[in-house]
Amino acid sequence: MPDRKSVAAALKNQRIETPSWAYGNSGTRFKTFLQEGIPRDPFEKLDDAAQVHAFTGVAPSVALHIPWDRVDDYAALAEHATSLGLRLGAINPNTFQEDEYRLGSICNPDPAVREKALGHLLECVDIMDVTGSDALSLWFADGLNYPGQDSLAERQQRLSEALRVAYDRLGPDQRMLLEYKFFEPAFYATDVPDWGTSYAHCLDLGERAQVLVDTGHHAPGTNIEFIVAFLLGRGRLGGFHFNSRFYADDDLMVGAADPFQLFRIMHEIVRAGALSDSANVAFMLDQCHNLEPKIPALIRSVLNVQEATAKALLVDGDALAAAQRDGDVLGANAVLMDAYNTDVRPLLAEVREDMGIDPDPIAAYHRSGYAEKITATRKDGTPAGWGA
Amino acid sequence: MPDRKSVAAALKNQRIETPSWAYGNSGTRFKTFLQEGIPRDPFEKLDDAAQVHAFTGVAPSVALHIPWDRVDDYAALAEHATSLGLRLGAINPNTFQEDEYRLGSICNPDPAVREKALGHLLECVDIMDVTGSDALSLWFADGLNYPGQDSLAERQQRLSEALRVAYDRLGPDQRMLLEYKFFEPAFYATDVPDWGTSYAHCLDLGERAQVLVDTGHHAPGTNIEFIVAFLLGRGRLGGFHFNSRFYADDDLMVGAADPFQLFRIMHEIVRAGALSDSANVAFMLDQCHNLEPKIPALIRSVLNVQEATAKALLVDGDALAAAQRDGDVLGANAVLMDAYNTDVRPLLAEVREDMGIDPDPIAAYHRSGYAEKITATRKDGTPAGWGA
Amino acid sequence: MPDRKSVAAALKNQRIETPSWAYGNSGTRFKTFLQEGIPRDPFEKLDDAAQVHAFTGVAPSVALHIPWDRVDDYAALAEHATSLGLRLGAINPNTFQEDEYRLGSICNPDPAVREKALGHLLECVDIMDVTGSDALSLWFADGLNYPGQDSLAERQQRLSEALRVAYDRLGPDQRMLLEYKFFEPAFYATDVPDWGTSYAHCLDLGERAQVLVDTGHHAPGTNIEFIVAFLLGRGRLGGFHFNSRFYADDDLMVGAADPFQLFRIMHEIVRAGALSDSANVAFMLDQCHNLEPKIPALIRSVLNVQEATAKALLVDGDALAAAQRDGDVLGANAVLMDAYNTDVRPLLAEVREDMGIDPDPIAAYHRSGYAEKITATRKDGTPAGWGA
Amino acid sequence: MPDRKSVAAALKNQRIETPSWAYGNSGTRFKTFLQEGIPRDPFEKLDDAAQVHAFTGVAPSVALHIPWDRVDDYAALAEHATSLGLRLGAINPNTFQEDEYRLGSICNPDPAVREKALGHLLECVDIMDVTGSDALSLWFADGLNYPGQDSLAERQQRLSEALRVAYDRLGPDQRMLLEYKFFEPAFYATDVPDWGTSYAHCLDLGERAQVLVDTGHHAPGTNIEFIVAFLLGRGRLGGFHFNSRFYADDDLMVGAADPFQLFRIMHEIVRAGALSDSANVAFMLDQCHNLEPKIPALIRSVLNVQEATAKALLVDGDALAAAQRDGDVLGANAVLMDAYNTDVRPLLAEVREDMGIDPDPIAAYHRSGYAEKITATRKDGTPAGWGA
Repeated sequence: MPDRKSVAAALKNQRIETPSWAYGNSGTRFKTFLQEGIPRDPFEKLDDAAQVHAFTGVAPSVALHIPWDRVDDYAALAEHATSLGLRLGAINPNTFQEDEYRLGSICNPDPAVREKALGHLLECVDIMDVTGSDALSLWFADGLNYPGQDSLAERQQRLSEALRVAYDRLGPDQRMLLEYKFFEPAFYATDVPDWGTSYAHCLDLGERAQVLVDTGHHAPGTNIEFIVAFLLGRGRLGGFHFNSRFYADDDLMVGAADPFQLFRIMHEIVRAGALSDSANVAFMLDQCHNLEPKIPALIRSVLNVQEATAKALLVDGDALAAAQRDGDVLGANAVLMDAYNTDVRPLLAEVREDMGIDPDPIAAYHRSGYAEKITATRKDGTPAGWGA
Repeated sequence: MPDRKSVAAALKNQRIETPSWAYGNSGTRFKTFLQEGIPRDPFEKLDDAAQVHAFTGVAPSVALHIPWDRVDDYAALAEHATSLGLRLGAINPNTFQEDEYRLGSICNPDPAVREKALGHLLECVDIMDVTGSDALSLWFADGLNYPGQDSLAERQQRLSEALRVAYDRLGPDQRMLLEYKFFEPAFYATDVPDWGTSYAHCLDLGERAQVLVDTGHHAPGTNIEFIVAFLLGRGRLGGFHFNSRFYADDDLMVGAADPFQLFRIMHEIVRAGALSDSANVAFMLDQCHNLEPKIPALIRSVLNVQEATAKALLVDGDALAAAQRDGDVLGANAVLMDAYNTDVRPLLAEVREDMGIDPDPIAAYHRSGYAEKITATRKDGTPAGWGA
Repeated sequence: MPDRKSVAAALKNQRIETPSWAYGNSGTRFKTFLQEGIPRDPFEKLDDAAQVHAFTGVAPSVALHIPWDRVDDYAALAEHATSLGLRLGAINPNTFQEDEYRLGSICNPDPAVREKALGHLLECVDIMDVTGSDALSLWFADGLNYPGQDSLAERQQRLSEALRVAYDRLGPDQRMLLEYKFFEPAFYATDVPDWGTSYAHCLDLGERAQVLVDTGHHAPGTNIEFIVAFLLGRGRLGGFHFNSRFYADDDLMVGAADPFQLFRIMHEIVRAGALSDSANVAFMLDQCHNLEPKIPALIRSVLNVQEATAKALLVDGDALAAAQRDGDVLGANAVLMDAYNTDVRPLLAEVREDMGIDPDPIAAYHRSGYAEKITATRKDGTPAGWGA
Repeated sequence: MPDRKSVAAALKNQRIETPSWAYGNSGTRFKTFLQEGIPRDPFEKLDDAAQVHAFTGVAPSVALHIPWDRVDDYAALAEHATSLGLRLGAINPNTFQEDEYRLGSICNPDPAVREKALGHLLECVDIMDVTGSDALSLWFADGLNYPGQDSLAERQQRLSEALRVAYDRLGPDQRMLLEYKFFEPAFYATDVPDWGTSYAHCLDLGERAQVLVDTGHHAPGTNIEFIVAFLLGRGRLGGFHFNSRFYADDDLMVGAADPFQLFRIMHEIVRAGALSDSANVAFMLDQCHNLEPKIPALIRSVLNVQEATAKALLVDGDALAAAQRDGDVLGANAVLMDAYNTDVRPLLAEVREDMGIDPDPIAAYHRSGYAEKITATRKDGTPAGWGA
C-alpha cells in the first residue's frame, strides 16, 4: 500500500500549467458570450493566473499564445510573472488566424505562406529565449476540407521540412512538443491527426521532439491511457493538454466528462514514475470556459487533476501486480477501482493545510473578493479573446 | 426498369432550396476567412441565389435566417425575389446569438429569456405572413455544457410549452419543421438531440409539425436513410437540411463526404414517392462554404443532389422488390449498386438542355463573369456573415 | 440534504434482476473460453442466482431466455425459484438462433418465418402465465447487412403487425418491453435501432408497451441519461438492461467502463422518483462474463449499481435546483460532483449490516466455498451457454 | 489525362488475394448460419478460390490461416494450388482460439502461454518455407477487457520480445506484416490498436516488417487514406486486408459500405505508384460472408476493388496537381470526383475480354453450374469454418 506521506509529498510537488487563453473570452463558431472582468492584456492574464496558483499552490506557470499574448517587451512580462510568483511556460505559436493560412500554414501549397508560418515559429523560439520558456508547443490547424484539395503526401514533406528548421533552431535546453488532433478545424483531413504521425515526426527530428497529448483530440472510443503508456515507454511523452469532452469539442474542464478516464491516465503516469520532475512531462491545461467564469473553472480543473492524481497514487501497486500476474481479472480491476472509489478530498485538504493554503480553494476564491474587484476595475478597454 | 422519360420529368420537377447564409462569410471557431464579392445585404444574397437558380434550373427558393436577414420591408424583399424568378422559402429564427441566450433560449431556466425567445419565434411567423413562406424551420442551440447544469426534464417541459404557443400561432397553410442535432454548440446535452425527441414533440403539437432531418446532425454511424424511411412511413418527414461531413462538423457540400449515403437517402425518397410536390418534403441545403467560393459551391451542391436523385430514379424497383422477396442478398444489393454506379451526368446534361440551360452549370457560371462582377462591385460596405 | 435514513431505506428497497444467461458460458465471435463450475440447466442457474441474492440482498429475481432456459415444467422452475427465495423475472424470447432467421424474424420477407417467430413470442407469453413473469422483454436481431437487401419501410410494417398480435395476447398485469440496439448482429441497418423507433411502436401499441434501455446499445457519444429523463417524463421507461462498454460491445460489468455515466443515469431515476416500486422500472442486468468468473462478476455488477444509486440519492436536490435556477453553471455541476465524489462504500456496508448480510459481499462469497463446490460437482454434463 | 491503354494494362496486372477462411462458414457471436456446398478442407477451399480467379483473372493467390488450414503435407497443398493456376499467399497464425489464450497470446502474463504462442508463429514460418509464401501476416487478439486487468506497458515489452524472435526467424525473402485493430475481441484495450503502434514495432524490427492496414479496423471517422499515404511515404505499407463496415464490424464486402472511401484509398496507391509489383503492397481481402453465398461475394469484392482502382487510374493527375498548386479547392475536388463519377464497368468489360474472360464475372459464375455442383457433392463431412 502506498504510504500517505509519500502520496502527500507527490501531491505537493505536482505542477500544472494554466493557459493564458483560458482567462480570455472564448466561444463556439455560433457565439462568444462575453463575461465581466476579463483581462485586457497578457499582464492581467498573469494576474488572474496568480490567483489560480495562490488558491491551489500547484499552478505556478502559464503558457502563452502568440500573437494573442504579443507584447513589446517579453522580459517585462517574464518579470511580471516572477513578481507574482509565476513563471512563463510553453510558447504556443498561432498559424491559423491570418487570411494567408486559409489553406494551411507550414503545409500550405504556396511556399510564401509556408515561409511566413515558419518565420512565426522561429519568432516564437526567439520569445522563448527571452522568457526562459523551455517548450515550443506546436499545434497546426493545417488540413483539408475536401478530398483532392491538396496532396496528403506532399503536405507531409512540407511539414517535415518546416519542423526540421524549427527544431534545429532550438537551444540545448529547449524542446519541441508536437500536438496531434483528430479533426477540426479541417473537416476532411488533418496533417497531424494522430499520435502515430506526431511520433514519427519526433523520431525524425531528434530526442528533444516529443509528442503532446491533448486529451480532447482523439477519435471516439480511443484508449488514451494506452497512448500515454506507449509514449512513456519510449521516452516520447512530452506532456499533456488537459481538457475533456463528451463529443468532438475539447474545451470542457478536465475530468468533467469522464473522471475515470483521467484517473486511468494518471495511473499510467504514476506507474511509470512520470510525476517526478526528472520525467519532464508537462501537465498543462488547454481549455476554454465558454459559459462558466474563468478563474474558478481553472481552479476546479486543477483540483480535478489533483484528485485524479491522488487516486492514482493510492493504487496498491503490489496488489495490482500480483493480481495481474495471477490472471485475476476481477481482482486486478478491483485494486484499481478501490483507489478510484476513494474520496481523496480529505487527503487533499490536509495537503493544502500543510502547504499553508485554504483546504477549499473554490470557496476561498469566492470569499476573496477578487471576482468583484476585476469586474469593477476592468470595465474599460477591450477584453482579451482568441482574436486578441 | 424506370423509363428515361419519367426519370427526366422527375428531375426537371425537383426543387432544392438554398440558404441565404451560405452566400455570406462563415468560418470555424478558429477563424472566418474572408472572401471577395460577398453580398452586403439580403437583397444581394438573393441576387446570388438567382445565379444558382439560373444555372441549375431547380433552385428557385431561398431560406432566410432572422436576424441575419432582417430588413425593414419584407414585402420588398419578397418582391425582389419575385423579380429574380425566386421566392422566399423557410424562415429560420435565431435564438443563439444574444448574450441572454448563454444558457439557452426557450429552454432557459430564466422565464424572461424564454419569453424573449418565444417572442422572436412569433415575430418570424409574422414575417412568414408577409413573405408567403410556408415553413417555420426551428433549430435550437439549447443545451448544457456540464452535467447538472440544468434539469434535463424541466427543459423538456419548457420546450413543449414554447413550441405549443408557436405552433398555435401558425396559419392553416403554414407548418413547423423541428430540427434535431446530436451536439454543438452544447457540449454535454442538447435539448433536441435526435429524431425521436423531435418526433415526439411533433406528435404532441399536431399534423403540421414535422421533423427536419439535417444530414450532418447525427451520431457517428447513424443510418440516416432508416430515419428517412421511418418518418416518411408516418407522414412526419418535413424536409432536409442537406450538407455533409466526415467528422462532427456539418458544413461540407452535400454529397462531398459520402455520395453513396446521399444516394441511399434519395432512394428512400423515391421509393416512397416523396419527390412529388404533394409529399411536401422540403429539400433545403444548409451549408457554409468556409474555404471555397460560395456560388459555385452551391451550384455543385445542387448538382450533387440532382445526381443522387437521378441514380435513385434509375433503381429498377421491380427487380429490387423481386430480389428482396426472394431473400437474394447479393442480387438485391446489386440492383441498388447498378443504379449507383451509373454515370448520370449525360442524362442530366440532356435534362438541362431540355430546360434551356447549359448542360455544364459550373463551367457556364465561370464563363458568365458574375464572380468578377461582384468582386468588383462589392468592395465597400460590410460583407454579410453569421453575425450580420 | 438527503437524510441518511431515507437514503438507506431506498437502498434496502432497491431490486436488481440478474439474467440467467450471465451464469452460462459466453464469448465473442472468435472464441468462447470455457469456465469451470458452469450450470448445466436452468435450475442450476437459479442456484447460482440465489448466491448473488444471498450476498447482496437486492437481486431476488432472474430473467429467463427462451429457448436457452426451456424446461418441460415451468411451474417446477418457478417453484425452484421460490424455494431459493427468488422469483422468475422477465421472459426474453430468442428469434435469432435458428437457420430460418438468417434474414430476420418478425421482419423477415418470408411470411412463414414471421409466423414462426410470432409463434415463439406467443409461446413466451404462455410461459409468463405459468411463471408469473410480468414482462415480455423483446429484442430483435432483425436487420440488414447490405443496402438494398430488403425494404426498410416494409420491415417496419411487418414489425408493427407482429408486435400488435403479441401485445394483444398479454394479460392485464403483463407488459411488453421493447429494446433497441444501435447495431449488431446486423451490419448495415437494424429494425429497432434507437429509442425513437421503440417509443413510436410503444405509442402505437398501448400503455403497457414501454421502452427498454440497454445501456450498451447506443451510438458513440449518445447521452443516455437524456433518453432516460425523456422517457420517464412520458411514462414510457419500462426498464434497463445494464452493462457497460468502451467501444461497440455491450457485455462488460455495468459501471466498469464509465461509472460517472451510470451515476448520471441513476440521478435521473432518483430525481424522477423512479426507484420506487410504483414507478415499475425494471432494473435488469444484461451481461456476459467472457473472461471473469460469473458469480462474483454479477455480485460486483450489483454493487456497482448500488454504489451509483447511493451517490445519486446523496445529491442535494435543493442545492442543485437553486444553482440551476440561478444559472450557476459551476455551482450546479459541483453539487452533482460532490455526491459523485463521495465514497459510499461505508454507507452501503452499514445498509448491509442492517439487512443481516456481510458488509463485503465479494469477500464473503469467496469465503463461502461455493465456487469450489460447483467446480467439483458440475464436472459432468454440458455446461449452459448461449446455444443451450 | 491517363491514357486508356496504360489504365487497361494496370488493371490487367492487378493482383488481389482471397482468404481461405472466406470460403468457409462464419457468423457473429449470436449465430453462424450454415450454407450449402461449403468446402470441407483446405484443398476444396482452393478449388473455390480457383473459381474466383477463373472468373476475374486477377485473384491468383490464397491466404491461409493456421490451424484452420492445417494439413499434413503443405507441399501437396501448394501443388494443388499450382495445379489450379493458384499460389499460396500470406500465412496467418491464429493465437486466439485455445483456452490458454484467454488472457492473450504473446502478451499473456504467463510466460508459458507466450512461449506456446511464439512457437506457433515459428511453426507458421516453417510452413511458409514449404509453401513458398513470402508474408507472415500477424494479427493478435491480445488485449484487456477491464482497466487494471494487466499492465499495458509490460504487455508492450512482451510483444516486442516475441516479434523480435519471429522476425529473426524469417528468411531474406520473407516479410512480416503487422496488423492493427481498434478493438475486438478485447473490450477495453488492444495491444496493437492503431497504425502508430504497428509502425513503431516495425521500425524496431527492421525493413522487412511492415504495417498491414485492415480497412475495417479503425475508430469511427478515421481517415484511412491518410494512413495509406503516410506509410507509403515511408516504405512501410505492407498491404491491405480489404473489407468494409458501417459500424464496428469488419466483414462486409469491400466497397459495400463506402465505395468513395475505397476509391480515395486506391487514389493514394496509384499516386504513389504502389500498384506496381515492385512496390510489393499486398492487396488481400479479409472478409466473412455471413449471409450471402461465399464465391459470388468474393467475386463481387474483387470487382469492387477493380472498379475503385479503375477510377483511381482515371484521375487526371496533371489537372489535379495544377488545381492543388493553385489552391483551387473546388477545382481540385472536381478532378477527383470526375474520375469517381465515371462508370468504369464498360472499361473493365473490355479489359476482361482482352484477358479472355467473360465481361460479366458474376453472371458467368452463376451460369457455370459450379454452385449447384458443390451443393450436390459436398453434402457429407464437416464444412469448414472458423473453428476448423
